Amino acid sequence: MPNAKTVKDYIRTIVDFPHEGIMFRDVTTLFADPRGLRLAVDQLLHPYAGMEIDKVAGLEARGFILGGAVAHQLGKGFVPIRKKGKLPGKVISEEYQLEYGEAIVEIHDDAIAPGEKILLVDDLLATGGTAEAGIRLIERLGGEIIGCAFVIDLPELGGRKRLEALGMDVHALCDFEGA
Amino acid sequence: MPNAKTVKDYIRTIVDFPHEGIMFRDVTTLFADPRGLRLAVDQLLHPYAGMEIDKVAGLEARGFILGGAVAHQLGKGFVPIRKKGKLPGKVISEEYQLEYGEAIVEIHDDAIAPGEKILLVDDLLATGGTAEAGIRLIERLGGEIIGCAFVIDLPELGGRKRLEALGMDVHALCDFEGA
Repeated sequence: MPNAKTVKDYIRTIVDFPHEGIMFRDVTTLFADPRGLRLAVDQLLHPYAGMEIDKVAGLEARGFILGGAVAHQLGKGFVPIRKKGKLPGKVISEEYQLEYGEAIVEIHDDAIAPGEKILLVDDLLATGGTAEAGIRLIERLGGEIIGCAFVIDLPELGGRKRLEALGMDVHALCDFEGA
Repeated sequence: MPNAKTVKDYIRTIVDFPHEGIMFRDVTTLFADPRGLRLAVDQLLHPYAGMEIDKVAGLEARGFILGGAVAHQLGKGFVPIRKKGKLPGKVISEEYQLEYGEAIVEIHDDAIAPGEKILLVDDLLATGGTAEAGIRLIERLGGEIIGCAFVIDLPELGGRKRLEALGMDVHALCDFEGA
């Protein structure tokens, strides 16, 4: 009997993490399964088949797992977008809002050359704040974002609309209700 | 003319990061290059060709990039070993020594089943403290570590000897002198 589990079926929900009232969608159970990881990478790339992509950019830290696998499947390089102070070379920075306060993400200023076509990946699209900061970093370096691809979209948090309003093509493999 | 650059040639050295006197070996320039990433993944796996591997485990955060790519190439799942408080499910923890103070790494307690054969990967082997903590986590879950594979070894810091003293098979793609 063939295995008909979808990407969504491999994702585990943890109640009250990181704090009460949050239903945390845990992709580690997806990535730990050989078929789950393969499905996620393949389906993430289907919309871009035949399109020119120069590099894959991923957001720290779960976006690194996915981004490494996606870049490898494409035969392209991977560029990390990291939290402040983690990248050793010369960086540019963008601030974004968290629920309480702000955070900063950075990219090496020579990680992307002007005109390079970039696929941005992460595991989860929630409010889109981190993704928007990543988009601004890539665009400041002259990169052309050909898509923003996520495993999970939480539509109620508005991230897709926010990124689409920036002119982005947004692709997600599954939705979950609630935050 | 064929490109004869080695993995080591793609690694950039940043002087005085994260603090004065440190020569930081920066793998982002390796991973950002399509040929560099491919070489690293291929060479990391050569010693294990034909061996049974059930899962790839990687250490946060640069080990996630490499681990995602390596797991994908093998067609296996990926298991993250993370800093304290980042994993949403039930975890087990191990403490290890830093230059000043201690740190804790964690793994989901159901991420590895007893008897599973695990390849542990990270970008850098320095003192081996983080890797040893990762090894203890995997072994506490009953995993059998078939190898510990790194892009870079800093032999003067003794990590290889430390892991070999634990009975580990250690593989690194290149060495750098100094810390």
